[in-house]
Amino acid sequence: MEAEIITIGDELLLGQTIDTNSAWLAEQLFPMGIRIQRITTIRDTRDAILNEVHAAFKRSALILITGGLGPTRDDITKETLAEYFGTHLERNREVLEEIERFFRQKGRPVLEVNRAQADLPADATLLRNTRGTAQGMWFEKDGKVLISMPGVPYEMKGIMNDGGFERLRERFNSPKFVQRLVLTQGLGESYIADLMSDWEQSLRNEGLALAYLPSPGLVRLRISGSASNGDLRLIEERINHYVKELERRLPHHVYGYDRASIAGVLGNILQERSASLSLAESCSGGYISHLITAVPGASSYYRGGVVCYSNEAKVELLAVDSELLKKHGAVSEEVVRAMAMGARERFGSTYALATSGIAGPNGGSDEKPVGTVWVAMASAKRCATAKLNLGKSRSRNITISSLSALNMLRNEILSKEL
Amino acid sequence: MEAEIITIGDELLLGQTIDTNSAWLAEQLFPMGIRIQRITTIRDTRDAILNEVHAAFKRSALILITGGLGPTRDDITKETLAEYFGTHLERNREVLEEIERFFRQKGRPVLEVNRAQADLPADATLLRNTRGTAQGMWFEKDGKVLISMPGVPYEMKGIMNDGGFERLRERFNSPKFVQRLVLTQGLGESYIADLMSDWEQSLRNEGLALAYLPSPGLVRLRISGSASNGDLRLIEERINHYVKELERRLPHHVYGYDRASIAGVLGNILQERSASLSLAESCSGGYISHLITAVPGASSYYRGGVVCYSNEAKVELLAVDSELLKKHGAVSEEVVRAMAMGARERFGSTYALATSGIAGPNGGSDEKPVGTVWVAMASAKRCATAKLNLGKSRSRNITISSLSALNMLRNEILSKEL
Repeated sequence: MEAEIITIGDELLLGQTIDTNSAWLAEQLFPMGIRIQRITTIRDTRDAILNEVHAAFKRSALILITGGLGPTRDDITKETLAEYFGTHLERNREVLEEIERFFRQKGRPVLEVNRAQADLPADATLLRNTRGTAQGMWFEKDGKVLISMPGVPYEMKGIMNDGGFERLRERFNSPKFVQRLVLTQGLGESYIADLMSDWEQSLRNEGLALAYLPSPGLVRLRISGSASNGDLRLIEERINHYVKELERRLPHHVYGYDRASIAGVLGNILQERSASLSLAESCSGGYISHLITAVPGASSYYRGGVVCYSNEAKVELLAVDSELLKKHGAVSEEVVRAMAMGARERFGSTYALATSGIAGPNGGSDEKPVGTVWVAMASAKRCATAKLNLGKSRSRNITISSLSALNMLRNEILSKEL
Repeated sequence: MEAEIITIGDELLLGQTIDTNSAWLAEQLFPMGIRIQRITTIRDTRDAILNEVHAAFKRSALILITGGLGPTRDDITKETLAEYFGTHLERNREVLEEIERFFRQKGRPVLEVNRAQADLPADATLLRNTRGTAQGMWFEKDGKVLISMPGVPYEMKGIMNDGGFERLRERFNSPKFVQRLVLTQGLGESYIADLMSDWEQSLRNEGLALAYLPSPGLVRLRISGSASNGDLRLIEERINHYVKELERRLPHHVYGYDRASIAGVLGNILQERSASLSLAESCSGGYISHLITAVPGASSYYRGGVVCYSNEAKVELLAVDSELLKKHGAVSEEVVRAMAMGARERFGSTYALATSGIAGPNGGSDEKPVGTVWVAMASAKRCATAKLNLGKSRSRNITISSLSALNMLRNEILSKEL
């Protein structure tokens, strides 16, 4: 089934907010057989909203709208939708009570702009928001559905998870697509395409679609099939066949599937083995630690880390020999190795990872240009190192160094067991 | 002048990639007087591209397209645009040589799919891409302009910065809008709206527009004016008047303007005073360190940090008294204070920040529910603490704790000097 997303708000058109809602909604709806054909971002004006809803209903049976429902004066979506659907706003007693309770709990006064959030279209079914005061609204017209939600991602997701998806599933049950994302680290898009060209051709010949989704340090491969080419289970099997073949050919690079994160995958590997991890970060500056601790439950395997942005910190906290620093410089194989071993010792962890490099944009030399990064992995048996020659972008260098270090440890643990 | 952005790619419609390009482009174009009226994301098919370009040219004098130019087989934008503009593809010798050099430098073989990136529309002006192999293309038709660029943000930004914006400025010079973003930390959207309601009314009465842009821990206020209500300098002055008044009323919360980050602002404050910083992070898990080190030049004031995810690390690396941990637990005012003082001592820094809390989603108790966070700031004179009562979302708790800690130090340093 085809659907559209409309996002409303000048902050999106002025580039002051990045729209993350559309991607999240599209990803959740796909396995339900609801495929987003179009995403349109428009201004928060009556005309823009009326025109776009009208045009979208001509094309699609479902419209999802985010944004334009804030308590402040610049939001007019609710009134405009009431007008479009020929209904009026009424103050909802139950919602009003919850709004008042919500503010009492936070110890803040209830303002009239907050109370006005309880003025809701009489003909809409409410999708309750328990995380904020702007309610979700489900409208129907000529057998088509429009859902309007606030733009705050946390609230929008709550509304959909708490009942929005369920209602959609009941209403439009037509699972028609299957997809699998295969996540790789450390290879370029065209390099993979070349290496796997026979595989890719064969996959396409079987009616499956393939797309490459690159981001710094990673390439995700999306393999998908539509039920119009056969039954769903058959397509799933066909896709799994290609996934396995890809994994067989690129074992060091395929780290997971679908929505997995490399830190989450590594976390599971550590947890299953009752192993622990510590970090010594220089150029990655705490980003590896952030990736690891973003995963719920990380405290069961992550002991901690040192961000040693100065030579003194490397010597004092990680017992790196100051002679090594003098002789080879902080960005060197010798020092990154000493950092990894120092962290492992210091935290008493099974494994340790370390980074040292020139993140940029300044600070490079002819011998060690910006983008020169050393990564090290220490275990009880050995300390392995790798050198990366990255580019001039600080944020890319931080990201790629961090992902490479995490994948280095994943490979170390898994290959030891083969 | 009105413009539109079209982003192309199934990865966007399937939610596998978040579109960050549109926000970046819109933000850069606004001060040039080019205002994005609409952003549309469409499928990578000939029909979708032809229809959307046709419709967009009816509405706007400028179209910016990102995506659909990758080397792999699923991209057909280039051919479709050549068809739309009635031209054909030709292999560009100079581009071909650069592509071959690009791959030689990376030590990778040049594939035929890479060479095909040199097949370019004969009538388009090239906007050269020095970071990848897909070139930017500038088309003209009936006095209107279309720019097509690859979707990789790093390459797209390079193309615009290296000549795209300059060419647009020459072509469409009409600066008509002024805006200022005022960045606040630690207050809710409706709380600010209520506190500043007279200010807001007066601002609107003077023909200026105001919008609230909330994100976890922060609210940005956008004040903008259009030159149709007076000359630009006058509008700038008017906006500055309201900005100053806001800053005067919320001195602890306004931390900067426009594209500033709180870590960047704090970095400047530290650098100007030759002061230094260290960190002891528990629940924020390295995220404060990441925010600080994302700023180029952070090594001149950031000494380093310890991420102490275990009690042992708190005792061993930060000399936290193990009796304190036993008596009060890791999430307590006493322990977070000892962590901050321990980090300051250990790294020999002017200031130190520490966090300890229950990030969630699990691990809470009746006494200390998920979202309970202690933040501490240690200086030579004192150690201040604050307790935050946050929600159940791990990522929000990490973000809000980190931003609160950074703003706590900013306030400490600035208020000392008053």
